Amino acid sequence: MHAYRSHTCADLTAANVGDKVRLSGWVHRVRDHGGILFIDLRDTYGVTQVLCDPDSAAFAEVEKVRAEYCIRIDGEVKARDPELVNPKLPTGEIEVFVRDIEVLGAAKELPLQVFGDQEYPEETRLKYRYLDLRREAMQHNMKLRTDVVRSMRQRMWDQGFREFQTPIITASSPEGARDFLVPSRLHPGKFYALPQAPQQFKQLIMVSGYDKYFQIAPCFRDEDPRADRSPTDFYQLDLEMSFVEQQDVFDTIQPVIGGIFEEFGGGRKVDQTWEQISYRDAALWYGTDKPDLRNPIKMQVVSDHFRDSGFAIFAKLLEQEGTQIRAIPAPGGGSRKFCDRMNAFAQKEGLPGMGYIFWRDQGEGMEAAGPLAKNIGPERTEAIRQQLGLGVGDAAFFLGGKPAAFEGVAGRARTEIGQELKLIDTDRFAFAWIVDFPIYERDAETGKIDFEHNPFSMPQGGMAALEGDPEDVLGYQYDLACNGYELVSGAIRNHRPEIMFKAFEIAGYGKDEVEKRFGGMVNAFQYGAPPHGGCAAGIDRIVMLLADEANIREVIMFPMNQRAEDLMMNAPSLPQNEQLRELHLRTIPADK
Amino acid sequence: MHAYRSHTCADLTAANVGDKVRLSGWVHRVRDHGGILFIDLRDTYGVTQVLCDPDSAAFAEVEKVRAEYCIRIDGEVKARDPELVNPKLPTGEIEVFVRDIEVLGAAKELPLQVFGDQEYPEETRLKYRYLDLRREAMQHNMKLRTDVVRSMRQRMWDQGFREFQTPIITASSPEGARDFLVPSRLHPGKFYALPQAPQQFKQLIMVSGYDKYFQIAPCFRDEDPRADRSPTDFYQLDLEMSFVEQQDVFDTIQPVIGGIFEEFGGGRKVDQTWEQISYRDAALWYGTDKPDLRNPIKMQVVSDHFRDSGFAIFAKLLEQEGTQIRAIPAPGGGSRKFCDRMNAFAQKEGLPGMGYIFWRDQGEGMEAAGPLAKNIGPERTEAIRQQLGLGVGDAAFFLGGKPAAFEGVAGRARTEIGQELKLIDTDRFAFAWIVDFPIYERDAETGKIDFEHNPFSMPQGGMAALEGDPEDVLGYQYDLACNGYELVSGAIRNHRPEIMFKAFEIAGYGKDEVEKRFGGMVNAFQYGAPPHGGCAAGIDRIVMLLADEANIREVIMFPMNQRAEDLMMNAPSLPQNEQLRELHLRTIPADK
Repeated sequence: MHAYRSHTCADLTAANVGDKVRLSGWVHRVRDHGGILFIDLRDTYGVTQVLCDPDSAAFAEVEKVRAEYCIRIDGEVKARDPELVNPKLPTGEIEVFVRDIEVLGAAKELPLQVFGDQEYPEETRLKYRYLDLRREAMQHNMKLRTDVVRSMRQRMWDQGFREFQTPIITASSPEGARDFLVPSRLHPGKFYALPQAPQQFKQLIMVSGYDKYFQIAPCFRDEDPRADRSPTDFYQLDLEMSFVEQQDVFDTIQPVIGGIFEEFGGGRKVDQTWEQISYRDAALWYGTDKPDLRNPIKMQVVSDHFRDSGFAIFAKLLEQEGTQIRAIPAPGGGSRKFCDRMNAFAQKEGLPGMGYIFWRDQGEGMEAAGPLAKNIGPERTEAIRQQLGLGVGDAAFFLGGKPAAFEGVAGRARTEIGQELKLIDTDRFAFAWIVDFPIYERDAETGKIDFEHNPFSMPQGGMAALEGDPEDVLGYQYDLACNGYELVSGAIRNHRPEIMFKAFEIAGYGKDEVEKRFGGMVNAFQYGAPPHGGCAAGIDRIVMLLADEANIREVIMFPMNQRAEDLMMNAPSLPQNEQLRELHLRTIPADK
Repeated sequence: MHAYRSHTCADLTAANVGDKVRLSGWVHRVRDHGGILFIDLRDTYGVTQVLCDPDSAAFAEVEKVRAEYCIRIDGEVKARDPELVNPKLPTGEIEVFVRDIEVLGAAKELPLQVFGDQEYPEETRLKYRYLDLRREAMQHNMKLRTDVVRSMRQRMWDQGFREFQTPIITASSPEGARDFLVPSRLHPGKFYALPQAPQQFKQLIMVSGYDKYFQIAPCFRDEDPRADRSPTDFYQLDLEMSFVEQQDVFDTIQPVIGGIFEEFGGGRKVDQTWEQISYRDAALWYGTDKPDLRNPIKMQVVSDHFRDSGFAIFAKLLEQEGTQIRAIPAPGGGSRKFCDRMNAFAQKEGLPGMGYIFWRDQGEGMEAAGPLAKNIGPERTEAIRQQLGLGVGDAAFFLGGKPAAFEGVAGRARTEIGQELKLIDTDRFAFAWIVDFPIYERDAETGKIDFEHNPFSMPQGGMAALEGDPEDVLGYQYDLACNGYELVSGAIRNHRPEIMFKAFEIAGYGKDEVEKRFGGMVNAFQYGAPPHGGCAAGIDRIVMLLADEANIREVIMFPMNQRAEDLMMNAPSLPQNEQLRELHLRTIPADK
């Protein structure tokens, strides 16, 4: 017989009754029923009930084990009494009577219990991660994650992509975030960097003629702490294709991402048609470029109804250039109490408040209530109602000013309203492509033009487009929004050196600067670069959505804490002097 | 029609004759046959011949393209004349007559040609890697590598393993090699390290109860330059299993590695039975713990034949304790010329020389020739011949002294003899497990006992074995040798804290030191650790063997050069002052 097990803890059924078996696993819990000891023996596959009574030679030893001891037992499979069969457990028909036991690994007193649902501070969970990871929820999340990644790979291979690994110790790639640096020992004073993304390498793979690349790629950014992201690294499904247009990328990635949500979504509905929404429409309708489309609320411009109206604040606002009034329809929100609560929400978000109208049935017909309705009069009020398609029991909220100033709050108010009114179908994954991102943005303070996203996207209209107003230039650049998160981001790349130099020039980067910062790629583009594009999907985020977790550390096996520390392994730590000497480095005390 | 292609460059056959098609790819070469331009258009899938004559409106444009231009053409598929059909090419039945052409990416003059087999200095190849990677041999190697990794994953999943990713930014793991450090910005003066291997994490995954783990894992070591290894990082197939003994690990990994060699070995023979050879036998028989078993030569101890013999050098040597005489049989090496050449080889390796005997047919029967045979006389010579199983036309070489002093040279001489005599079947992958490694070794100079390999292996015999002579303690530790390389290395781990502390104590590490250096793991072992073991297989090395390449950079897409530089991306490079300031670091000029 095998030294440790003849079966796993999920294997035994009524068919094994009478068998002599050997099991290994952890003591999930011990119960004493009238002098008989029952142990739930657990491994990663399942749980088997084993028992021992004082007649067994092993009894004295069995008495000593405690929760989370790792043990090996030999015993005999017995059928449970019919009334004790547990149909929920694959092994619920049987139990194993212990004849022999060996403690493989004893356990000290536990800082956190594996059995049960007790909550523990995150620091405890991370410090004793090896206990935390034994818990059912974590076992589920970790298996989900690896199964998702496996399925992604399979789906990419099935579409003719090959996975190529790009360097992890490499050059600084100035893509917006902060690099982690790695000092070079062989080249004193010089540093490598960990890649923020394999962006340049995947484009080089296209120039190298490999046509279809993907990678489950670790990405490194030295980020300041935030709850929903890892302060050190994260994983992307990174892909790139040659000889494609934007729609080709969509047609490639939709079955991958959609398929993953179908496969692992636990039966939640997955949108089959993914709308394409322009960046500008998304901002107008949803106040964000990662809208939650499970929320049916769509904002609208209602400026005309307020122009020269009796509501002086909006009427005056509209006299300034670039201002608008927008409405957030709130179907089912037609009560003063609700409207006041939302108004308070807007104030908490830093606005003076949100004007509102709500419609109620006053016996002799519909009545529009709220101060705004009075100010603008019944005709305008009715025109608004008709535009928004609202009726009795509904409300609408109004925000005015320059859109850039209130769009963010409007988006959050839309979410708040949707949640409060339970308009959001939590049983659904709602997808949309956000397209036509502007290439440039003008800094509100300095007036300087800079890249809105990364500088590698192809401008729509090519070189000609770059001759006009930079703020009008749209890129072949896109995001995939799902339930309010950005899951995927990508672009058709600018593979033409002359257009690239021009695009950088507009943002104030000279040719020298471009060659210095992106020399590898710019050089490569001068040797027969193919048109290409691709995207990257955030794996941690996808698994979070599937696992219905709000904290990224619930889907990472050994995450850093929010201060970027690993308390279990003691990282970061003080280096040895010899290490610093070899690297020609000196550390400077933080207070200097 | 699609913007760039209706077919790839490998798709078109006689069935497409008459079709209007669109192709994109690179100009592999251009030929002018009597005013007609022939272009071999290449993509990653294949090559299609396209042609253009002055009647085509596209002719003027086609005339301008040069090698490695990336182009799109529209044209008409025509059947080739029967005598021009190329049966070696999938598209060899047809050619495409060009009606329209678009240059997608022009190419400057090429620093290296993609077409043809011309060799270039490695620096040129690495600097213009995107051109180098377009060449046929590199396309083959890169596809081989990714296909091998894919197959490994599939084989591991098929055996019930799951892939879990372990941290890349983590704690220093003192495993013998030098760490790459990563300065922490949030914790000034402290550093992370990149993992030399996921050793501790994979053991923690076992303690966390996941039973079967694998990972295609990047490993980072700050190594000094050497031709056959990357100076920064390499990839391992890393695996670990709980509740196993050594043989279980062998039974798991043999079908994976063996299967990979069957699948990608191009028909070369793959050993079906993998012998287990003890470390000590391997040293005796082959002079190395990574023997090339394609070489049939097996060394033997022949001390007795020389004891008190007429060959004074060996006879005297044998009077010292711990000395031996070993023979290297050389079947087919029976000529003075060959023996002298091997003797010279030994001298070049730093030995005084190798004694030899060779056997020849002198008409009236077999004669043993060489000075040694004369000195020890015919009886001893014949006894040696019989022990070694040699005959006419064969030779034997002799080395004497303390084995540790000559085993290395003996091993190299065995290889040299095997190669010179063409005894090595180059059409075969020969595998053997090397087992029973000693846990400790005694430093020849200081006499101090230290770990021979890594300190995490379980000693055979457990705690009891640690009570005796440390040099006699063997570990459940093993390597897989293939054709002279170490492909896999692994162990059953020491999961018992008390045995671990004792093992470290023998090597001079106190409990405090162990807790400081391996605290995460040692703590974990006190909460119900299962017995576990595993191994890691070197992926770069496996692909090198399969691709029949001697240089690791031939199987890595974007390797560093031997000075650990990436000349294409300019790494490492000088940091910005702002970066150093944020990290609280100062660099010290190298000459101080």
